Amino acid sequence: MKKLLLFLFILLYAVPFSSQAQKKSKTTQATSTGKYQANWASIDSRPIPTWFEDAKFGIFIHWGLFSVPSWGPTPKDGASIYDCYSEWYWYRLTDPNSKVNPLFVKYHTSTYGKDFRYQDFVKDFKAEFFKPDDWASVIQDAGAKYVVLTSKHHEGFTLWPSAQAWNWNAVDVGPHRDLAGDLIKSVKSKGLRMGYYYSLYEWFNPLYKADVNRYVDEHMLPQLKDLVTRYNPDIVWTDGEWDHPSETWKSTEFLAWLYNDSPVKNDVVVNDRWGKETRSKHGGIYTTEYDLVHEKAQTEGSLPRYWEECRGIGSSFGYNRNENLEDYSSAEQLVHILIDKVSRGGSLLLNIGPTADGRIPVIMQQRLKEMGQWLKVNGEAIYGTRMWTAAPAKKIPDVFFTAKGKDVYVICTKWPENGIELEGVALPSKITMLGYTGPVKAAFQNNKLMLTPPVVSPATVPCDYAWTFKLENAVK
Amino acid sequence: MKKLLLFLFILLYAVPFSSQAQKKSKTTQATSTGKYQANWASIDSRPIPTWFEDAKFGIFIHWGLFSVPSWGPTPKDGASIYDCYSEWYWYRLTDPNSKVNPLFVKYHTSTYGKDFRYQDFVKDFKAEFFKPDDWASVIQDAGAKYVVLTSKHHEGFTLWPSAQAWNWNAVDVGPHRDLAGDLIKSVKSKGLRMGYYYSLYEWFNPLYKADVNRYVDEHMLPQLKDLVTRYNPDIVWTDGEWDHPSETWKSTEFLAWLYNDSPVKNDVVVNDRWGKETRSKHGGIYTTEYDLVHEKAQTEGSLPRYWEECRGIGSSFGYNRNENLEDYSSAEQLVHILIDKVSRGGSLLLNIGPTADGRIPVIMQQRLKEMGQWLKVNGEAIYGTRMWTAAPAKKIPDVFFTAKGKDVYVICTKWPENGIELEGVALPSKITMLGYTGPVKAAFQNNKLMLTPPVVSPATVPCDYAWTFKLENAVK
Amino acid sequence: MKKLLLFLFILLYAVPFSSQAQKKSKTTQATSTGKYQANWASIDSRPIPTWFEDAKFGIFIHWGLFSVPSWGPTPKDGASIYDCYSEWYWYRLTDPNSKVNPLFVKYHTSTYGKDFRYQDFVKDFKAEFFKPDDWASVIQDAGAKYVVLTSKHHEGFTLWPSAQAWNWNAVDVGPHRDLAGDLIKSVKSKGLRMGYYYSLYEWFNPLYKADVNRYVDEHMLPQLKDLVTRYNPDIVWTDGEWDHPSETWKSTEFLAWLYNDSPVKNDVVVNDRWGKETRSKHGGIYTTEYDLVHEKAQTEGSLPRYWEECRGIGSSFGYNRNENLEDYSSAEQLVHILIDKVSRGGSLLLNIGPTADGRIPVIMQQRLKEMGQWLKVNGEAIYGTRMWTAAPAKKIPDVFFTAKGKDVYVICTKWPENGIELEGVALPSKITMLGYTGPVKAAFQNNKLMLTPPVVSPATVPCDYAWTFKLENAVK
Amino acid sequence: MKKLLLFLFILLYAVPFSSQAQKKSKTTQATSTGKYQANWASIDSRPIPTWFEDAKFGIFIHWGLFSVPSWGPTPKDGASIYDCYSEWYWYRLTDPNSKVNPLFVKYHTSTYGKDFRYQDFVKDFKAEFFKPDDWASVIQDAGAKYVVLTSKHHEGFTLWPSAQAWNWNAVDVGPHRDLAGDLIKSVKSKGLRMGYYYSLYEWFNPLYKADVNRYVDEHMLPQLKDLVTRYNPDIVWTDGEWDHPSETWKSTEFLAWLYNDSPVKNDVVVNDRWGKETRSKHGGIYTTEYDLVHEKAQTEGSLPRYWEECRGIGSSFGYNRNENLEDYSSAEQLVHILIDKVSRGGSLLLNIGPTADGRIPVIMQQRLKEMGQWLKVNGEAIYGTRMWTAAPAKKIPDVFFTAKGKDVYVICTKWPENGIELEGVALPSKITMLGYTGPVKAAFQNNKLMLTPPVVSPATVPCDYAWTFKLENAVK
Repeated sequence: MKKLLLFLFILLYAVPFSSQAQKKSKTTQATSTGKYQANWASIDSRPIPTWFEDAKFGIFIHWGLFSVPSWGPTPKDGASIYDCYSEWYWYRLTDPNSKVNPLFVKYHTSTYGKDFRYQDFVKDFKAEFFKPDDWASVIQDAGAKYVVLTSKHHEGFTLWPSAQAWNWNAVDVGPHRDLAGDLIKSVKSKGLRMGYYYSLYEWFNPLYKADVNRYVDEHMLPQLKDLVTRYNPDIVWTDGEWDHPSETWKSTEFLAWLYNDSPVKNDVVVNDRWGKETRSKHGGIYTTEYDLVHEKAQTEGSLPRYWEECRGIGSSFGYNRNENLEDYSSAEQLVHILIDKVSRGGSLLLNIGPTADGRIPVIMQQRLKEMGQWLKVNGEAIYGTRMWTAAPAKKIPDVFFTAKGKDVYVICTKWPENGIELEGVALPSKITMLGYTGPVKAAFQNNKLMLTPPVVSPATVPCDYAWTFKLENAVK
Repeated sequence: MKKLLLFLFILLYAVPFSSQAQKKSKTTQATSTGKYQANWASIDSRPIPTWFEDAKFGIFIHWGLFSVPSWGPTPKDGASIYDCYSEWYWYRLTDPNSKVNPLFVKYHTSTYGKDFRYQDFVKDFKAEFFKPDDWASVIQDAGAKYVVLTSKHHEGFTLWPSAQAWNWNAVDVGPHRDLAGDLIKSVKSKGLRMGYYYSLYEWFNPLYKADVNRYVDEHMLPQLKDLVTRYNPDIVWTDGEWDHPSETWKSTEFLAWLYNDSPVKNDVVVNDRWGKETRSKHGGIYTTEYDLVHEKAQTEGSLPRYWEECRGIGSSFGYNRNENLEDYSSAEQLVHILIDKVSRGGSLLLNIGPTADGRIPVIMQQRLKEMGQWLKVNGEAIYGTRMWTAAPAKKIPDVFFTAKGKDVYVICTKWPENGIELEGVALPSKITMLGYTGPVKAAFQNNKLMLTPPVVSPATVPCDYAWTFKLENAVK
Repeated sequence: MKKLLLFLFILLYAVPFSSQAQKKSKTTQATSTGKYQANWASIDSRPIPTWFEDAKFGIFIHWGLFSVPSWGPTPKDGASIYDCYSEWYWYRLTDPNSKVNPLFVKYHTSTYGKDFRYQDFVKDFKAEFFKPDDWASVIQDAGAKYVVLTSKHHEGFTLWPSAQAWNWNAVDVGPHRDLAGDLIKSVKSKGLRMGYYYSLYEWFNPLYKADVNRYVDEHMLPQLKDLVTRYNPDIVWTDGEWDHPSETWKSTEFLAWLYNDSPVKNDVVVNDRWGKETRSKHGGIYTTEYDLVHEKAQTEGSLPRYWEECRGIGSSFGYNRNENLEDYSSAEQLVHILIDKVSRGGSLLLNIGPTADGRIPVIMQQRLKEMGQWLKVNGEAIYGTRMWTAAPAKKIPDVFFTAKGKDVYVICTKWPENGIELEGVALPSKITMLGYTGPVKAAFQNNKLMLTPPVVSPATVPCDYAWTFKLENAVK
Repeated sequence: MKKLLLFLFILLYAVPFSSQAQKKSKTTQATSTGKYQANWASIDSRPIPTWFEDAKFGIFIHWGLFSVPSWGPTPKDGASIYDCYSEWYWYRLTDPNSKVNPLFVKYHTSTYGKDFRYQDFVKDFKAEFFKPDDWASVIQDAGAKYVVLTSKHHEGFTLWPSAQAWNWNAVDVGPHRDLAGDLIKSVKSKGLRMGYYYSLYEWFNPLYKADVNRYVDEHMLPQLKDLVTRYNPDIVWTDGEWDHPSETWKSTEFLAWLYNDSPVKNDVVVNDRWGKETRSKHGGIYTTEYDLVHEKAQTEGSLPRYWEECRGIGSSFGYNRNENLEDYSSAEQLVHILIDKVSRGGSLLLNIGPTADGRIPVIMQQRLKEMGQWLKVNGEAIYGTRMWTAAPAKKIPDVFFTAKGKDVYVICTKWPENGIELEGVALPSKITMLGYTGPVKAAFQNNKLMLTPPVVSPATVPCDYAWTFKLENAVK
């Protein structure tokens, strides 16, 4: 009997991943010796790795075939923010139900002709200017601590030589280069963390459309595991999960493997996009996108898990040549967004969209540099902090808080011309303004701390955009 | 114990073939009750459909991504005939062990640059001149009775929208047109038969290279069945079988399905390329290629099965822009080849190689037309005939025989200036020369028939290249 | 005063011709002392060089930017022969008055898009397969004795690095190669003659359209002289003359220079296309094109000058991918055309249209080779002959004559099954059929020669298409 | 006799200039009676139009075929600033004597292949995103008052349909659009001035290389006049004059026509690049480029004519994809440069380099917007001002002056933390800081004015980069 089971095992292993219940239970058995089980209760019990909660600021990179047309409408065209995503070009172009479909069709037809198909763009994806070390430097100078690159977006095109995407990846066609692999090497060599965005579904993959189970077994899971074992990413940032429940995607099986057996089991961070029912319920960090999820929860600081907001500098994630300066958030706006997220217990994953020839547009370099300049002065109030849970219930306009140990940071996104009156703090042992060497005047009275900004001129102001009072030992 | 093994077997067989339990059991039932079993003894027992043995002359069409570079060496370069195949461009280019690799590398690099990969050719496969009705007319006028088109060559690129070859087929990329489907419609509407060449293996498909079993189950078999059920081809002409035994390819399972359950079960013709051990042993018709197989057997008329010789007009199957007039067989040579094959009990599958823009090169139209002109006069001695098994043992130079019912056809590839002395025939009831209205002089003496050619001038000769005496009721 | 004004005139005339005063006066001097004056009476007095009257068969080559689209309608589309010329693509496409304009517009727009302009084709003119030595061999084997290449067609694009066509020539753009120069080297090295077609006008050249005089002085004449002095062509075959009288083109001035001072003054042959009034009136050889000129004169043998018929193998001069086999003249037709022209005192300039990648289409190689095979047997009756001026007034169907010295050649384009009855000859000293070693039966009676064809079989017939009786010393 | 010869001379000179006798005599007449003569003394006597001296800030636009490769080295590569110009790509690539030639060759060959020539870039110059109205808005919002576009750079490629540059202009090839014409329409409709840069010489024009005189007469002068009469530009900004003296270029003749007879004779502004001997000596405004000319003269305020400094935002004029953020001047630097030039009696012509697809890179939009924001507050101290000729001889660090009427503007490029002590002014009737509504403290003592900056916070500071004290009626 034992002999027979062994034979059975070998045979089954050979099949591929397997579409059969039989196999699943086996996988489950194998899992049964690991720390985590293939169910949400077990998966959810894993804490978010500390490195991630400390990092606060990451750079999202949307790069793919969509970077060739690099076109989408802008809010000026009356498009909602989601309709501005250039990385959805293929889908919008072919979806007659989309409100912006006529805009895409018009642009496409007049620019490339009606017979030109999305796949034909591949000939112009060359990445000839791609210098991963330079990218890593730009990101490091921005003060970001991690990177998430689209290893594969919904188009199914992979930025690494995936066996599952033969002739539909950046090595076989287009750039003829392992973009995903080359970047992670450079980023990690700078001491930053890096992981991958990965779309579970693929809009037009015939196997996905015909048989999602075979797709998951034969295509998706082998591909995702290959990505993990090949590059050891620090983050597995999934998306495109909404069509099916996590059971169909075999998400808990994958996560059990990732947490128990993968080479990155200790430090890897995942998100909550693992099935139509999982966002803000299961997985790792919770994700928001233009605050559309949990706006209220965030405000109230009541999200039960660590979360991360992702968004673009402009209205698109993929590069959009149709965007002009007015479509780009200013450095001031971006710094304010970062402060807002961090003060509410989250992180900011700010997106950049490289060009098809492999450059980070200089305006994005500019925004990142300006954020880096602010962070050089104020990073202490961001990195490694946590939400100040004892912050006053009543919001003080343009004032935000973070806490680290016993210290409280009061970050002002407008210069507090008239001072700040603050409740809920103990008498600080010391009060300073970050980047400013002079003294800060304050008064403590009736359990209220009165902060007065120092007199600064353009010659002595420590930074632009926002200014931080550090209250040492102020946590009650 | 037994029960368990059986269960195991069914399971394994069923899984990859179809992911739907319902379907699986059906297939299994069908197989068990069908006429043909999934083993060679049973498969081989099926007779060759008569239409095929009558047809004699078919047109092979090699068309694919290789039609873009459309380049190969020629015998002038010292290349063997197999090394001249332009459809092997990708392989030769990347195979350092090939004798002609340096020639391919030199051409490729100097013409396209070293960074240009084979897959990049897809942008120039447009087929904008493709008029399938015109192709069908050209083939019909050639006197050919069937067509075999490369639905997929070893490169894996399909000429139809195969779900298994996403973004690697002629609808998703390149021509954006169902080339295979459009042609079969036109050809069949002319009353001709049509089928497809299909390569079992794919040189560079990562799934094939990593796991041939998964490749067969997930890629090849679904793809091949899709081809059959989608277009109802009269011929399934496989190739690329040599790396693995037929068991690996699951050839008998496929053939059992094809013979029992497919929509073409009655008339379909297959060949003998189903596994490394099958050529000239198993399957349908036996195939030869430049006579390299069975030359002796053919000569002796001892091949145990109906066979077909495939060959190009030039040295390449795929179009080769490097070939000039001296590389093309003359009409005379081609007619002689046809006569030779038919007289030895085979058929000729003569290849043409269309251009990437969808044209049949005019020189090929010329050759086909000349053959058609000869066949218009002499077709009676070709179509529907069989090898004359009682032909004289001793070869008469430049004289060939075919038989139909009681009639014998004596085909002379040189004008028999001095007459022909023929043994083994009964006294014919009538003797004529095809296409010539005058009388033919003959004498019958000592069981020998003395044939004297008529006196013809350029004004009265019935045709070029070869001349046929028809001996009615001459079969003993 | 008068004298001075005259001087003034000459000076002014000379200015644009050459910008160097020194040179100007020289030219003037040369002209005054040279053999030929810049007027038609003088120019026309120069005899046609004997080499040309002996050559009889030349190859015209139409190659240019038009070889990229290589498209035109065919007679099937109801187009007249002139409307089928693919080299007129640009003009037809933009000429709303042309009957075939809609056909060109439809093809162009559906294939390239409405925004694609003719000039954009230049990126696909690569000539990467161009091997001038091979071209020369093909032409030599055809039995042709000279070549005329389109150095510049009406599009203005030159096949040599013309300073007057900066960035609009084959060296600056497209092939980046001196096509005209490379070919003449190869052709001459085979012992053949070669010259250039040159279009006087350029459809869309702004200078031509704005000021024909400046165009002639600053563009055309320097360009044409550069062509002559750079390559020493044996023929200057002009065209595109019809918009202006020869005076505007300064044709006699150019020809005086060509005949008196150019490096090719002794042997150069020119044609009659030098101004709207010159065809069949002035210049060198007279030109016909599809017999539209002088059909009657030719028939009657009354053309006052040696002439040459130019025509395509198909309906277009430039390569036309839209032409199929039925559009190509057969070798038999071409041989008959050659015989017809030569017997009427002319030459045949048969056109071939190479592809944009630099190949002579194999079907054209085929036609040339077949003509060469016929000429190998019958060349004696063609080369070096003259019209037999004493030929019988009454045309014998399918019988043509040429003469050389005292010998008469009787060329039969149908096998003269019933013999030929010939008047006007002296009793020949010897009668043979070219390529046939046996005797020829003949009778001479009542001043009539009765020729009887020999009995030949396919094994002994000397050639296809046409057969020649040689009557030695038969000229009365 | 003498008289007649003279007439002859004039006539001959006139020929190439205009081919119409009628016109010729007119031109001659006009010249003789016009206000300006074709000599430098007369030409130089024309004052600079006031609008130009008032405008101060213009935008230079370098756009051409060079915008396709859009590549050059950067100072990091050890290249001098002139060697970084991407618009010199063609020349550097082909000039073995250039220090940066190896860098260009390496980039070119590895990116495009060694057979790819500069002219081949034309296929990728599409300008499909070009929206001239948007460009005009961006420029207007920058506070610029005029625009200079490269109508033709040294490559000879024109951005308008120049008859002299057939098939080498943006309408015939590439964008197929009149880029120069479309932009001037948009810019003028905003109330801004616009003119054209025009290169006298063309590196590789064969006519230029062979015969500069014919080039000037047949190509350059007709082309330049066409540009002027077609678009009525406010500025004719020539360049590429250094190979020949102005006599060869016939510069004074052209300028006499421009000043006397052209449609823009009243308002047109020209520069000093009219011949190898003319810079800072003759013509209209004097031009400097990276201060390499007249640094000393500028400092001393002793330039005898109004001048204009042109420079890029980065190190290149043409767009350079190789430039990253560190290569771009900051808004602060640019504002300081503007202040410096204006205070020394000049203007700033700041360059932007659009992309081949027709966009102004967003980083350039950013810089322009930041300058516009500064100018909105401080424009009063720039536009319409003149150098304050009575400024103190001893330079006060980071303090600059301008004057308008009786008012003096004191512009501080660093916040004057310790105040400013100023000599040479009368007691101002009023002292303010532009953009700041509060009072400014000042003391006047011993003929010195002591200015003290107001106390401002980030909330009340009027602008960034530089701050202006306005001293009303302070000019002595």
